[in-house]
Amino acid sequence: MIETHEIVSYVAATFTTASFLPQAILTIKTKDTDGLSLGMYSMFAIGVFCWLLYGIKMEDEAIIVANAITLILAGIILSFKIYNTFIKK
Amino acid sequence: MIETHEIVSYVAATFTTASFLPQAILTIKTKDTDGLSLGMYSMFAIGVFCWLLYGIKMEDEAIIVANAITLILAGIILSFKIYNTFIKK
Repeated sequence: MIETHEIVSYVAATFTTASFLPQAILTIKTKDTDGLSLGMYSMFAIGVFCWLLYGIKMEDEAIIVANAITLILAGIILSFKIYNTFIKK
Repeated sequence: MIETHEIVSYVAATFTTASFLPQAILTIKTKDTDGLSLGMYSMFAIGVFCWLLYGIKMEDEAIIVANAITLILAGIILSFKIYNTFIKK
């Protein structure tokens, strides 16, 4: 029997992971990264990469999948920010 | 003795939580939310709120503190986005 706190953790993981999809789509469409913090996406990508390592070490598939998806989406957003900050200007 | 995977999880939690600080500071300073996705911050806030409920249920202080801080920071950013999208315009 699945417990309530497990359901809550699945909902939480789904929302926090999926939330980066609309941001990635917006950034790809508009290429507007002026309001995005380079510091945030740099730190966030490092943090998510560490969560991925943790998931691999713990052999926890849910943590691996959630953080792999988040890392790809955050990586796309970070790439646009780096391009606009250091290459385009 | 603290294990490597525990250190990795602390580093991960610190980075993903603290990353929202530079974004909140940038948004407060510039008030520029054009490049920020309303969908992202709405979904993210719901997800972090669920993680907070999970932490409270599990009586895990680290999860509670990390997600409480993240919820406050993401809430500030979301408030600016909602204001600019629905009230200012």
